[in-house]
Amino acid sequence: MRHLSSEAYMLGKRIPDVTKNGFTRMALEGIGQIYELARNPEYAPILTRKREDGSIISAYCSIHKSREDLISRVRAARLICQETGVCTASRCCGWDALNALWHTTFEMDAHLGTQYHKRLTRYAAMVQGKDLTCAGALTDPKGNRSLKPKHQPDKDVYLRVVDENRKGIVVRGAKSMIGGAIGSHEIMVQPGTGLAEPEKEHAVAFAIPLNTEGVVQVVNMQAAGERKLNGGFDKGNVNYGSSESLVIFDDVFIPKERVFMNGEHDYAAEMVTRFVLLHRMVLGGCLAGCGDVLTGAAALLAEYNGLTRQLSDRLTEMTYLCEVLYAQALGSAYEGQETDSGAWFPDPLLANVTKISVTRLPYEIQRIAEDIGGGMIACMPSELDLRNAKIGHFVEKYYRGAQGVTAENKLRAAELIESMVAGPSRLGALCMHGGGSPAAAQMTIRQLTDLEHKKELAKKLAGI
Amino acid sequence: MRHLSSEAYMLGKRIPDVTKNGFTRMALEGIGQIYELARNPEYAPILTRKREDGSIISAYCSIHKSREDLISRVRAARLICQETGVCTASRCCGWDALNALWHTTFEMDAHLGTQYHKRLTRYAAMVQGKDLTCAGALTDPKGNRSLKPKHQPDKDVYLRVVDENRKGIVVRGAKSMIGGAIGSHEIMVQPGTGLAEPEKEHAVAFAIPLNTEGVVQVVNMQAAGERKLNGGFDKGNVNYGSSESLVIFDDVFIPKERVFMNGEHDYAAEMVTRFVLLHRMVLGGCLAGCGDVLTGAAALLAEYNGLTRQLSDRLTEMTYLCEVLYAQALGSAYEGQETDSGAWFPDPLLANVTKISVTRLPYEIQRIAEDIGGGMIACMPSELDLRNAKIGHFVEKYYRGAQGVTAENKLRAAELIESMVAGPSRLGALCMHGGGSPAAAQMTIRQLTDLEHKKELAKKLAGI
Amino acid sequence: MRHLSSEAYMLGKRIPDVTKNGFTRMALEGIGQIYELARNPEYAPILTRKREDGSIISAYCSIHKSREDLISRVRAARLICQETGVCTASRCCGWDALNALWHTTFEMDAHLGTQYHKRLTRYAAMVQGKDLTCAGALTDPKGNRSLKPKHQPDKDVYLRVVDENRKGIVVRGAKSMIGGAIGSHEIMVQPGTGLAEPEKEHAVAFAIPLNTEGVVQVVNMQAAGERKLNGGFDKGNVNYGSSESLVIFDDVFIPKERVFMNGEHDYAAEMVTRFVLLHRMVLGGCLAGCGDVLTGAAALLAEYNGLTRQLSDRLTEMTYLCEVLYAQALGSAYEGQETDSGAWFPDPLLANVTKISVTRLPYEIQRIAEDIGGGMIACMPSELDLRNAKIGHFVEKYYRGAQGVTAENKLRAAELIESMVAGPSRLGALCMHGGGSPAAAQMTIRQLTDLEHKKELAKKLAGI
Amino acid sequence: MRHLSSEAYMLGKRIPDVTKNGFTRMALEGIGQIYELARNPEYAPILTRKREDGSIISAYCSIHKSREDLISRVRAARLICQETGVCTASRCCGWDALNALWHTTFEMDAHLGTQYHKRLTRYAAMVQGKDLTCAGALTDPKGNRSLKPKHQPDKDVYLRVVDENRKGIVVRGAKSMIGGAIGSHEIMVQPGTGLAEPEKEHAVAFAIPLNTEGVVQVVNMQAAGERKLNGGFDKGNVNYGSSESLVIFDDVFIPKERVFMNGEHDYAAEMVTRFVLLHRMVLGGCLAGCGDVLTGAAALLAEYNGLTRQLSDRLTEMTYLCEVLYAQALGSAYEGQETDSGAWFPDPLLANVTKISVTRLPYEIQRIAEDIGGGMIACMPSELDLRNAKIGHFVEKYYRGAQGVTAENKLRAAELIESMVAGPSRLGALCMHGGGSPAAAQMTIRQLTDLEHKKELAKKLAGI
Repeated sequence: MRHLSSEAYMLGKRIPDVTKNGFTRMALEGIGQIYELARNPEYAPILTRKREDGSIISAYCSIHKSREDLISRVRAARLICQETGVCTASRCCGWDALNALWHTTFEMDAHLGTQYHKRLTRYAAMVQGKDLTCAGALTDPKGNRSLKPKHQPDKDVYLRVVDENRKGIVVRGAKSMIGGAIGSHEIMVQPGTGLAEPEKEHAVAFAIPLNTEGVVQVVNMQAAGERKLNGGFDKGNVNYGSSESLVIFDDVFIPKERVFMNGEHDYAAEMVTRFVLLHRMVLGGCLAGCGDVLTGAAALLAEYNGLTRQLSDRLTEMTYLCEVLYAQALGSAYEGQETDSGAWFPDPLLANVTKISVTRLPYEIQRIAEDIGGGMIACMPSELDLRNAKIGHFVEKYYRGAQGVTAENKLRAAELIESMVAGPSRLGALCMHGGGSPAAAQMTIRQLTDLEHKKELAKKLAGI
Repeated sequence: MRHLSSEAYMLGKRIPDVTKNGFTRMALEGIGQIYELARNPEYAPILTRKREDGSIISAYCSIHKSREDLISRVRAARLICQETGVCTASRCCGWDALNALWHTTFEMDAHLGTQYHKRLTRYAAMVQGKDLTCAGALTDPKGNRSLKPKHQPDKDVYLRVVDENRKGIVVRGAKSMIGGAIGSHEIMVQPGTGLAEPEKEHAVAFAIPLNTEGVVQVVNMQAAGERKLNGGFDKGNVNYGSSESLVIFDDVFIPKERVFMNGEHDYAAEMVTRFVLLHRMVLGGCLAGCGDVLTGAAALLAEYNGLTRQLSDRLTEMTYLCEVLYAQALGSAYEGQETDSGAWFPDPLLANVTKISVTRLPYEIQRIAEDIGGGMIACMPSELDLRNAKIGHFVEKYYRGAQGVTAENKLRAAELIESMVAGPSRLGALCMHGGGSPAAAQMTIRQLTDLEHKKELAKKLAGI
Repeated sequence: MRHLSSEAYMLGKRIPDVTKNGFTRMALEGIGQIYELARNPEYAPILTRKREDGSIISAYCSIHKSREDLISRVRAARLICQETGVCTASRCCGWDALNALWHTTFEMDAHLGTQYHKRLTRYAAMVQGKDLTCAGALTDPKGNRSLKPKHQPDKDVYLRVVDENRKGIVVRGAKSMIGGAIGSHEIMVQPGTGLAEPEKEHAVAFAIPLNTEGVVQVVNMQAAGERKLNGGFDKGNVNYGSSESLVIFDDVFIPKERVFMNGEHDYAAEMVTRFVLLHRMVLGGCLAGCGDVLTGAAALLAEYNGLTRQLSDRLTEMTYLCEVLYAQALGSAYEGQETDSGAWFPDPLLANVTKISVTRLPYEIQRIAEDIGGGMIACMPSELDLRNAKIGHFVEKYYRGAQGVTAENKLRAAELIESMVAGPSRLGALCMHGGGSPAAAQMTIRQLTDLEHKKELAKKLAGI
Repeated sequence: MRHLSSEAYMLGKRIPDVTKNGFTRMALEGIGQIYELARNPEYAPILTRKREDGSIISAYCSIHKSREDLISRVRAARLICQETGVCTASRCCGWDALNALWHTTFEMDAHLGTQYHKRLTRYAAMVQGKDLTCAGALTDPKGNRSLKPKHQPDKDVYLRVVDENRKGIVVRGAKSMIGGAIGSHEIMVQPGTGLAEPEKEHAVAFAIPLNTEGVVQVVNMQAAGERKLNGGFDKGNVNYGSSESLVIFDDVFIPKERVFMNGEHDYAAEMVTRFVLLHRMVLGGCLAGCGDVLTGAAALLAEYNGLTRQLSDRLTEMTYLCEVLYAQALGSAYEGQETDSGAWFPDPLLANVTKISVTRLPYEIQRIAEDIGGGMIACMPSELDLRNAKIGHFVEKYYRGAQGVTAENKLRAAELIESMVAGPSRLGALCMHGGGSPAAAQMTIRQLTDLEHKKELAKKLAGI
């Protein structure tokens, strides 16, 4: 894996081998499931696509060519989250970024006579052929958020072009909280916000391998993320993990062929919009899937405690909340529209509406899981206590469940819940700011609402 | 109109002519819009269907033959509610009843060798050909709700067959809260609950004209429904109204050709389920549409008060809530499935999930509308005060709005809001018990949830 | 009763005798309960106060002299609402207005050397001695709400002084939505907002009998308020009603002795603030009391339907919501403080917090009541149908409840619920804008929050 | 400190010195603040009490002798949580346990002629004189929760008396999730549930030093609790921590003088009830205090990001939610009642209502904090990355805030938020199951609601 040689740090230390570091290995395993499950015929319709030449590629590097593809995008999100219990953001974000670029470069070429879409078409074919995992990177560090890019004291807090020659460009800056970058081959970079003419240096999009000279990753820590460095079940989800990196571009050279926007600031907002549209829809599927796992874990612990019947109403409410998110994502997909580029995108209003729900309901799902799980979710013995020769038998005796359920199984179920309400896989971490803040989605809804039409409806009925 | 001669009462008096009574006339006008808008080419794709012989029929008496038909069902609901601001339940419920019968009679004929589906096919063709409005009737009075039908002291509280001969059957009982019956040509009656063998007398389905001998309607009053008897704008919605009747069957003879179930108790539950599935999905469209009108009315009054900017966040939240309902209904439709009869039905889990949302969010929509509208929503002068020679000028002076808005227009907007939060068109009346109670939907969700699958997902990730 | 001769209109007609008009009579009966219950020794500690001279007066014209008086203020609100099921706003608002004036006139006299507090002391003694009901009036019509008073095209949309002589002042304008004015002897008028120097003409407070020359009332209609004009039980609450008036001051002369502010614009905001503080606290008690009635009605109908056990969780949630409101009001009272005038006022932050809860939770109480009540809450036969010779027996037969409960009792319980969720006594009408809008309370909370202190707490713990 | 020699384990290892272990030291520091702040004259009225002999004792080992003492109990909770940001449960629970025992032993002595209250009086005097920290222990491991104690396969899952002689008793079992036990001198043990006659062996209450032979603690791990073992600011709250232990009683001898219940099963429920009443009220103060810190941290990070104005509404909502909890706790305290023993307890209904709010609102506080904090709350560089020579400058450059705020301060604020939404101090851990589960509080509310009285109110108004 080429990216193994990329320069990455975590907890203040260089990571020599991402396959040996517990934290990053779990992230790789999560992404790996996308490859693994695609080989399962049951899931192939969701996880693969057929190209025009008949070849089969991963859905995760495809362009959405129909309403059904958008629906399938949502189904893939739920499936992968059900199977891994975590955000496998890199392939997801890369998928969304590729589609956003597809449409926007098409528009640029059509209107400006640029060559970006042609380049991107070649790039996409390469990625599809090699089945690469590409991270998608939008979020700039932003510095003082009340200032626009052009007013920032340090211009680098929005990634920008600092040099250019015949062969390519040199970029400086960073992208924040890039999901799954540590497990990706490539990174696709786009602007993170709309840009004005004086900000054209920030209007840049490109894709490069993550082991390119000058690219440095700081893998972020997560709540209780340190547990993933260790074996055992205290980490809750024993197999899979998510990861996010600060990806620094320390004057990195990008060859021309890999540049998909360079100064066309008028198209920056469109590129961002297209990415977030997909992402805001998709989160409904992701959170439904992770919510399914959490519902299952809560049901399991309820059973272990002998309380299935008593907690049945609460479990039903968890199911309700998960399906609400899923239904909204499907609705957003169904109402999607085709663009001139041939790529499909979800309905803008419904996708943003889904995003708002996604920032609210999962907290209620977490709350109910903790209600069902009981006090031990907040404090329980470690697996190390259970294994201890002196006190292990006490832990076994006093944590045993109903019908002969072992303390270990009860603790495993409880640790999984903890990791999903207050640990590395907690729903809140996944749902709140992915695809942009709630405030951004609310602003978009305001802009997309045809309030005048609604006023007309009211006027007619009121006889005004 | 044949039904004009039906025997109907309201507020303790016989209604001599439903087209002259203000209350019932507004209900007729509401249903009339379904006919009216179908002639508008813009809406024809939603409101009409093409039969196999190429003839065009109203969608409201069609069988759903595809996923798109289900989607269109939801769109029709939103459209009609946007245009009328009220529940036009009769054609809606009749539509759902027809589809429920279509599937269940097909199943009965296939398994039991009965002739119900053949009869229904002829009946449907007649209804389609004449473009009749058919009410759908399920809800029995139920008496003591903790007792099953077979234990009721008065067996008639569940409608039942009391006699039978070669030519047909005689039924006794009543159906409660039948939307739009007063404006319907026909009524399609089904069981309102699952039934056991000793309850087979209640397992009866049929359709007859509402002016059949022995059919008596008591048109129910609604909150502030009396205002619809008068002219003027105090009623809020000046054109359209909903209506609901207690329809009494005082030993009514039903000719054989119109009987679609007679004793096959094993199929009663299925018939109910199919009806409510459609209805629970559709309500997401209805409430989105009515919510649109209420949002528009709130925006209008905010504008009249000079407060558009200040109340922008609250208006956005109203939009959000409406679209949530719509997106869920679309998701339920998209996940629909075909039955052996050829009729399509929405996804059972998602339709019930939509129903739960429908019993919660509209109250929040109402709440925000009242917040935006200000204190006058709860108390304002009547139009009669505005028209009064002595005090009219005071009302004009002190109710005038921003930018020269007249008191009349401000009052009209406020009355419309009042009628939708606390009057005959209030969302709460439409959303809470239509298609069954929230408790019924929650029970169904519990039954449909594959908790074992969710537990398996959790076990795998927890290493159990 | 002196006010009987006041000039009042409703539904476009002069009211000749408020004791004979069904609507206004029910409002009088509501206020009458305050007098009636005060004579009950059980309630005397809450509803009466002892003056320093040992004489007993109604609490409703007393000044709060202790923390316990504030607590008692909340208890009185809950009690009266429990016993009447309606807002008896006049005495309530007058009580709060008297206390607001007490404090603010004291401050004016102390700082400006005016004589207002002395006048008010005499006025209060007169009111207490005669046990008069005084309405409290703050809300101006406001015209274009985005403009300040000084920018309004028609200055009269904020009540103002238009003339002045040695004997008194002449005022013009109106006060909106004045609770219980039709059943009050006196009206106490205050500014409705903070005022700047150029707006000093609006800085006026006074009290006069409601039958003063030039005072004209338009009694506002309420949702379904027309039913109160009739006998029978369709109105839900068969005995008591609330009322609100637009009170117009058509160049009314106010004698000097009754003027409590005249141009001291700097004190207008303080006067408003003190009134709303009391009112925002008190609403917690009011809504708890009305919520109790609605909970009882829902429990009753559940019992009549044979569903008490099945709906037990929902009834518990209703109780929870009512007690939340009460507990917050008590907390606001307990944290109250004394002013230099000797009058006590609730804690500003907690009173505003209570107000916010009061604008949210009652809608959930209404929602659950409608859930429990079933579909009939939205549509049911009229009492007139039940009395009809032809169809009455059908209504009796099909609306009979469990265990021999008559249709009449079931309908009475359902009508009471309807009147409290969508009729004249609906909680939403009482809770949303009483004491000011939610937005105003939120702004106050923002101003009162010591965010810097909270930041310091955080800094210390974070080691910043 | 005597308890230093107690036998305690964490993460599978014996803790040799609790003052040197980072995790337990932070718990000690938290409890230490209760002693420290009591010496501050500003806080002395809240944190100390005067005994009848004039001596000053810590409030935390006092009996509530008045309504004001209950109010002060709530104020102390908020204050300590504001100052430490964590649950300092041991002294809290011990305080509540002492009061529960005070009342219940008084009742037992009065009715049964036992000597428990006399013993407890001596014990309380000793604890007050030495100013000891006492943990309070109720929760049994419970095994299969659908079975009563008498039906458990392993009787030890409810702590019980296994032997008795002239000098005392021998107990076996464990108490779960005992807050602050590791930092306590003594532990006061009570039954955790109501008990029937065949379960009298479980009806036992006593107090002993935690370093008594046979007492073994397993200090539970918390979400991300491992970070407290290290220095630096990644742990968020850099000074204080909570702790919870499984406290095992491995056949421990309790001398007679320290036994406060032994077989009087009829009084077990009362003892539990009195403890939880206090605790359910107090949590309103705790969560308000912790919520204040979280609000401050969110405001701080908003300021660092340059977004104070934009996020002002959300910060106001956080304040609202905190004050709601506080107001309810104050209301519960104000409505408290004295018992025959002289000890005061909060109003049962309002205390349980407060508990329900406490299990809901803090999750919304967490949610808003995460909304305000932005994506970095879920993933950020470690302090170790900031200190790293190679990448520290990147972290500094790209995490710098508005107006020259250093990356370190921004990270410190963000880590504090993370620790309170998803780490060891998260509100959810504190609020959900402290003082019993939401289901238990709901059941109590149901039992305490006088539904018959509410029905009577409704009947009267409906004319039934």
